[in-house]
Amino acid sequence: MTSRTTYKRTVQLSEIDFSLRAGIISMIGYILDIAGVDADSKGFGIKKLNSENRSWVVSRMALDFYRLPNRYEQINISTWVNDYGKLLTVRNFTVTDEKKCLIFAAVTQWAIIDISTRQALDLRHADEYNKYLCTDPSPVENPRKIAAINPKETVIHKVTYSDIDFNRHVNSLRYISLMIDMLPIELLSNPNPFHVEVNFLRESQYGDILITGYEQCETKSLFEIKNDKGAAICRASIEWNN
Amino acid sequence: MTSRTTYKRTVQLSEIDFSLRAGIISMIGYILDIAGVDADSKGFGIKKLNSENRSWVVSRMALDFYRLPNRYEQINISTWVNDYGKLLTVRNFTVTDEKKCLIFAAVTQWAIIDISTRQALDLRHADEYNKYLCTDPSPVENPRKIAAINPKETVIHKVTYSDIDFNRHVNSLRYISLMIDMLPIELLSNPNPFHVEVNFLRESQYGDILITGYEQCETKSLFEIKNDKGAAICRASIEWNN
Repeated sequence: MTSRTTYKRTVQLSEIDFSLRAGIISMIGYILDIAGVDADSKGFGIKKLNSENRSWVVSRMALDFYRLPNRYEQINISTWVNDYGKLLTVRNFTVTDEKKCLIFAAVTQWAIIDISTRQALDLRHADEYNKYLCTDPSPVENPRKIAAINPKETVIHKVTYSDIDFNRHVNSLRYISLMIDMLPIELLSNPNPFHVEVNFLRESQYGDILITGYEQCETKSLFEIKNDKGAAICRASIEWNN
Repeated sequence: MTSRTTYKRTVQLSEIDFSLRAGIISMIGYILDIAGVDADSKGFGIKKLNSENRSWVVSRMALDFYRLPNRYEQINISTWVNDYGKLLTVRNFTVTDEKKCLIFAAVTQWAIIDISTRQALDLRHADEYNKYLCTDPSPVENPRKIAAINPKETVIHKVTYSDIDFNRHVNSLRYISLMIDMLPIELLSNPNPFHVEVNFLRESQYGDILITGYEQCETKSLFEIKNDKGAAICRASIEWNN
């Protein structure tokens, strides 16, 4: 058993959007970075896994955004893993500002894949995880399964070099970026607290065609990315309180 | 007069490409970040300029890539400003690895714009820059004017939310990303030393249509981004030694 680990980070100029705040993509980028750093520091990160032809992939996330931090603001990112089952581990995050106010919270679910077969591996043999479990409850309810949508608008994108990450597939953040880019920009300028959920369903590779669909249902923005064979790749929802 | 300033940086997982190295976009991202940090630390960065309705914009760059650093590699980024004229300052960079081998060098030219009129301001009244000039010569020849091209391929892109930065225009790195994404991916997997030049010619804004053209002339990759009115926005060339 262990306790939460906290990392400091300062919002950089390159991480802010037109509203001069770190937006949804940067905030999710911060926690994905910290997930990597924290797992590596405990001996079960990409450094170790890749040497064994394995890798972490994120499967689902649920995120509460209370306030977007401003440029140069210093934030504290705390993370802890509080559960793991056959296929998924649960990694949690809270982000606080210098006044210790909570500005963001997240629960993320991760699988380990075999790099050659791309299949998820059984995590229950990984006894080394036990020692780093922290029993603090998740700060957000677990992400749910998101249903297919009836998009009112779609955008087609061919996967390019800059979409691909070290796992040799489209980076999780890139899917989120494709979806957020379909929103009316006003929604992103200074939002009230909002809730985001993402389901990553399938991998996509260099050269694939992605069709991103968007549908606005009252206060909910719904997204689905499919490939050109009709298979769902990624779904997301944002519940706004504006 | 002053000397070079050096910053340490570790290549993060989120900054590497499919070849497990920090690619062209990440390397240019590092120096743009450091340009911001270094200027702020000396009192003429975005922190001060934005409070006076002014901002830095990059105009041209010439970059020598000797080796792309690997994930988790620690690099040392040195920067110094060695000249400024009426419209442009010259900021230089060298990047070395832990063995002090030079892996990257760059010369970049910057203008200050008035945020409202978007016009470049006269820099010669800025006496405060004198004290931070470092007379070390630039490590790369100054970037030249790049001519229009006859593209063999074009890709159309509508400017979205994630393309826009704190200057409320398309981010410099985004143009480079649009261009690099047109290359045969083999060229990017483990290149010999190569030379890149970029000319940023005009701003583009949210909703603009960008047409990125690419032409391969023997060992040279040539790029031009135009808007849908035919005006050139950005041009670049890469000289490969493969």
